[in-house]
Amino acid sequence: MATPCCSYELNATCGDARAGTLTLTHGTVPTPAFMPVGTRAAVRSLTPTQVKETGAHIVLSNTYHLWERPGHERIGRLGGLHRFMDWDGPILTDSGGFQVFSLRKHVKLSEEGVRFTSQIDGTKRFLTPEVAIEIQETLGVDVAMVLDECIEWPATRERVADSTARTTRWLHRALAARKHADRTAMFGIVQGGVYEDLRKAHAEELTELDLDGYAIGGLSVGEGHADLIAMASLSAQFLPSHKVRYLMGVGYPKDLVAAVRSGVDLFDCVLPTRSARHAQVFTSVGRLNIKNARHKDSDEPLDPNCACMTCQRFSRAYLAHLVKIREGLGDTLLTIHNLTYYQHLMARLRQAIVDDAPDQLRALADEAETAGRPT
Amino acid sequence: MATPCCSYELNATCGDARAGTLTLTHGTVPTPAFMPVGTRAAVRSLTPTQVKETGAHIVLSNTYHLWERPGHERIGRLGGLHRFMDWDGPILTDSGGFQVFSLRKHVKLSEEGVRFTSQIDGTKRFLTPEVAIEIQETLGVDVAMVLDECIEWPATRERVADSTARTTRWLHRALAARKHADRTAMFGIVQGGVYEDLRKAHAEELTELDLDGYAIGGLSVGEGHADLIAMASLSAQFLPSHKVRYLMGVGYPKDLVAAVRSGVDLFDCVLPTRSARHAQVFTSVGRLNIKNARHKDSDEPLDPNCACMTCQRFSRAYLAHLVKIREGLGDTLLTIHNLTYYQHLMARLRQAIVDDAPDQLRALADEAETAGRPT
Repeated sequence: MATPCCSYELNATCGDARAGTLTLTHGTVPTPAFMPVGTRAAVRSLTPTQVKETGAHIVLSNTYHLWERPGHERIGRLGGLHRFMDWDGPILTDSGGFQVFSLRKHVKLSEEGVRFTSQIDGTKRFLTPEVAIEIQETLGVDVAMVLDECIEWPATRERVADSTARTTRWLHRALAARKHADRTAMFGIVQGGVYEDLRKAHAEELTELDLDGYAIGGLSVGEGHADLIAMASLSAQFLPSHKVRYLMGVGYPKDLVAAVRSGVDLFDCVLPTRSARHAQVFTSVGRLNIKNARHKDSDEPLDPNCACMTCQRFSRAYLAHLVKIREGLGDTLLTIHNLTYYQHLMARLRQAIVDDAPDQLRALADEAETAGRPT
Repeated sequence: MATPCCSYELNATCGDARAGTLTLTHGTVPTPAFMPVGTRAAVRSLTPTQVKETGAHIVLSNTYHLWERPGHERIGRLGGLHRFMDWDGPILTDSGGFQVFSLRKHVKLSEEGVRFTSQIDGTKRFLTPEVAIEIQETLGVDVAMVLDECIEWPATRERVADSTARTTRWLHRALAARKHADRTAMFGIVQGGVYEDLRKAHAEELTELDLDGYAIGGLSVGEGHADLIAMASLSAQFLPSHKVRYLMGVGYPKDLVAAVRSGVDLFDCVLPTRSARHAQVFTSVGRLNIKNARHKDSDEPLDPNCACMTCQRFSRAYLAHLVKIREGLGDTLLTIHNLTYYQHLMARLRQAIVDDAPDQLRALADEAETAGRPT
C-alpha cells in the first residue's frame, strides 16, 4: 500500500503526456524527470554540485554495487547514502536484480532468490526480495525498487508469464519485509515483456496493490524503439493517473520524448554519462564524436543552443584535446554537457505540457531524433 | 632588459622572507605564490573554476607538451592558451627543456639547441632558445621561461660551469628572439648546481641583464632538502630585491616554507596534483594514504583544519571508496584538497610576513614538516 513518504501530483496534461510533481523524503521532483546514474555512490567524474547544476533533482544509485563496495552497513553507519555522497536531494536505488542477472553463469535462481558469486571478493551471496529491501532501507534512500527477475531477450510467452508471476510474488515478500515505510517509498515493476496481454494484466494487478509508484521494466533490452514505446505506452495506460510512472533504463533522447508523450514521468539511463566517457556527445544539432578530426580546430561550442558550463566556456578543439590526452577533465566536461542536454530536454517537455502545446512536443521529438543521429 | 608587462612590488619583509605583488598581463599575483601545474593546458581533473577556488592566482603549463599536442600554432589560431583552457589569470610556461632532456637517449644536444624524437608522433624536432620563445609567445602566455640545459645529477664542477655558460648564451639568443615583450615577460634561470661560487657568479651575471624575473633552476633533482635550500637561499641573496624570484619544480610543503624564509617568491610543482592521483594527501596533521584500511570507516574529513570543498563535504570513508573503485571524482576531490592545502599555506606565509611575525613563520615550518610526514 502507498505510504506518506511518496506522493505524485498531476499538474497538467497534453494528450497522454503528463507534467507532475513527485514529492519524496528529501525533496520534490518536477516531472517528467531524468535521473543521472550514480551507480557506486557517484555520478562519474562529477561533484554533487556539478550534478545539481545540470538541472538534476534526483539521482539513481545501485543496490548491488553498494552492497559489494563499500557495503550498505558501512554506509548506514556513516549516516546513510545521502550523507555519504553528499547529495541532499532524493535518491532512488535499483534493486540490484538487473546487475546480478547480468552475471549469468555465476547466478543460480530459485523461488527464494538469486544466489551468485561476488565478482569483487569471490564470496557467495544470496539476494532475495527481503535482502534487497533491507539494503535499500539501510542506505536510507527515498525510493527502493523491489527485486524483480530480469530475463533474457527474446523470451517465450510462457517464460515471460512465469517470470512476471514470480516478480509479483517477490513484490509481496518485499512489501512484507519493509521496516521504514516512513521514509523509503517502494515502487513495483510492471513486467510482461513484449506481450500486450501480460503487460496489461500485470499493470492491473499491481495497480490494485496501491503502491507508492510504478516502474515499467524489462524493456530497452533489445526489442527496438517501436516495441519499447508501444510497451511503455501500454503499461502507462493501465497504471493509475495519481501515481508516478518510471521507465527503467531508457534511453536515447528520442525514446524519452516518445515515452513522455505516452504518459511516462521518470527515467534513468547510463547513456548520457557513459557516452560522454566515450567521447559521444548529444546536441540539438546531432550526435558528435568529439574524437573526429574535424573538431580539432573548431572554436565552436559542442552545441550552439546549450547553456551548460562546457558549452559556455570551452571549444570543441579544447575538448578534443582533453579526450585525446585522456584527461579526466574531458570526462567531466562532456558529462556535464550530456546531462545538461537531457535535463534541458526534460524541462522543455514539461513546459510544453504545462503550456498544452502539442506542436512543441512534436518539435522536441524532432530535435531528439536529431540529437541521437551521428553527424 | 625588463619590460613593462611584468613588475614586482615588494610589500613587506620578515627576515629574508618577502611578501610582494607580481603584476603580469593577465592580472596580479600576491606572493609568495604556488602555481598549480597544468602541463597540457589543464590542471588534471579540475575545471578552471575549481582551480581558482583552491586559491590559485597563476597556473603553469608546458611548452614542450603543448608543442607536441595539440600544437602551439593551433592554440594560437584558437585565440591563445588563456582562451583555449579558459583560464583568465596569468599563465607561466616552462620552456620545455626539462621535459626534452628527460627523454635522454632520444636527445642530441649541440650549441644550437636540442634535437629529439617526438614520443607522440615519431617526428624529429629541434628545440632552440628561439623556438622555445616563439612557441611561448604564440601561446600568448604571461611569462615565458628561457630554454636552459638541464643536466644530470650529480655533475662535476666543470660540467656544471660549461652548462651554466651555455644557458647564459641561450638566454642572450632568447632575448634577441622575442617579439612580444609588450605582453609576454621572460624570466632567466640561475644555474650553478650545488657549487656556491657558480651560483653566485651566475646570479650576478643575470642580475646585470635586468630581466623581468629570475628563476632558480637545476634544483630538486636529487640533492636533498639541505642543499636545495642552501642553494636557493644563496641564489636569492644575489638577486635584485625588486624582481620576483621563482624556485622551479619545488616541492614538499617544508621545502616551500624554507625557501620562502630564504627569500623565494614563486613556486611550481606536480607534487600536490600528482600525489592526489596516487591517493597521497597533505594535511596539517600529516600525510595520509587514503587507501589505508583505517580510513574505510572514518567519518572524519581529510584535514580538520581545512576549508576546502572536499574537507567540508566528504568523509575519508567516501574518498577511500572513490579511490578504491578508481572513480575520477576521487582524483578531483583529492586534488582540490592538496592544492588548497598548498595555497592556504602560501596565504598564511604571506600573512606572517606582512605581520612581521617570525614566530608564525617558524610555526608554519613546523606544520609543513608535519604535513609531509606519513601518519
